[in-house]
Amino acid sequence: MYRLHCFSQSGNSFKVAFFLRALHQPWEAVFVDFMHGLTRDGSWREQTNEMGEAPVLDDGSRRLTQSGAILTYLARKHGAYGGRTEDEQLEVLRWLLFDNHKFTSYLATYRFLKAFGAKPPEPVIIAWLKGRVDAAFAIVEKHLAARRFIVGDAPTIADFSMCAYLLYPPEESGYDFTRSHPNIAAWLARMREVDGYASPYEVLPGERILPKW
Amino acid sequence: MYRLHCFSQSGNSFKVAFFLRALHQPWEAVFVDFMHGLTRDGSWREQTNEMGEAPVLDDGSRRLTQSGAILTYLARKHGAYGGRTEDEQLEVLRWLLFDNHKFTSYLATYRFLKAFGAKPPEPVIIAWLKGRVDAAFAIVEKHLAARRFIVGDAPTIADFSMCAYLLYPPEESGYDFTRSHPNIAAWLARMREVDGYASPYEVLPGERILPKW
Repeated sequence: MYRLHCFSQSGNSFKVAFFLRALHQPWEAVFVDFMHGLTRDGSWREQTNEMGEAPVLDDGSRRLTQSGAILTYLARKHGAYGGRTEDEQLEVLRWLLFDNHKFTSYLATYRFLKAFGAKPPEPVIIAWLKGRVDAAFAIVEKHLAARRFIVGDAPTIADFSMCAYLLYPPEESGYDFTRSHPNIAAWLARMREVDGYASPYEVLPGERILPKW
Repeated sequence: MYRLHCFSQSGNSFKVAFFLRALHQPWEAVFVDFMHGLTRDGSWREQTNEMGEAPVLDDGSRRLTQSGAILTYLARKHGAYGGRTEDEQLEVLRWLLFDNHKFTSYLATYRFLKAFGAKPPEPVIIAWLKGRVDAAFAIVEKHLAARRFIVGDAPTIADFSMCAYLLYPPEESGYDFTRSHPNIAAWLARMREVDGYASPYEVLPGERILPKW
């Protein structure tokens, strides 16, 4: 059985958890107490992930980290959601990289500082990050104008990767996509219809924390 | 012949240009005038890359963007530098993602604001970004303590991806790795020995700009 090292606030963990559910694969959660600094601990890094991040997937023989690598591995292994042709597979990889580089990476950091930081966020940093988030979101909003999913006409791991942080409660990031990004909102509604979907706080371990700032 | 849409300040372009040279593949540069806003232009985005980024690779039949996707495609096509086993290939993908998420992505933004921004950088943002860069660099410095390359014992596309921004003149980012990160500095020296290496400003089109701030 898969073991996923994860925690409830981590959209990167939710990318994999949602995908395992869509694949109908049983998995067990190993709680990572990120909010109390576990991933900064030297021995955790040595034993679990030198990159100091969740998620981490154990599948018995392999230990994998980085949500995009885990999604790619699982899609190949189970022969699903990875893109049907070489062109689609390359397009999936392109969007996985964009997601990690500019899309939910900036949103994740923005949301974390706004909702869960140790102290109130610096307005200058928040404003700068919001500019980066908005620029990436405008690209995806436009991309989804004439499409139902990110690549091709059915969900792929690019969708699982890109939607995960956006499926958290809007009060955490301050983004309400129904108002600001209607194409993204419609796509999120389609992802919520994927068999196996449940919200991040239903699926992942660790106490929910209400936004602090 | 490959056509690479690129510009001299772009470490993401250099990732691919350096790799094409290491593969001994002829290629032609198509200059992208990023510094004067070409990638923000609507018609450029429509025709060349909706993500508004360089590099873009044309190989006759395909147009690819995102350096990590281009590197993966080229490594597969030419059967080199992609990792020799499935484990190595997954490890390569893991570091490509880390690079795009946290390593040279933060360094690139930090360097750009410091050296090429339209106005002097905000000290609060620069200090915050430096914290992110330093955290990612500490992980790679440690990773390279007992290894010659990022994955396995020979260069892979993970190395080409991760080294590119670090091979620009130190005065642009303010990082002098020989002093701050000796393992990274030794690894960069090894990458400079790869057959085909030449520095970014020798290889990529577009005028060199001296750091402004």
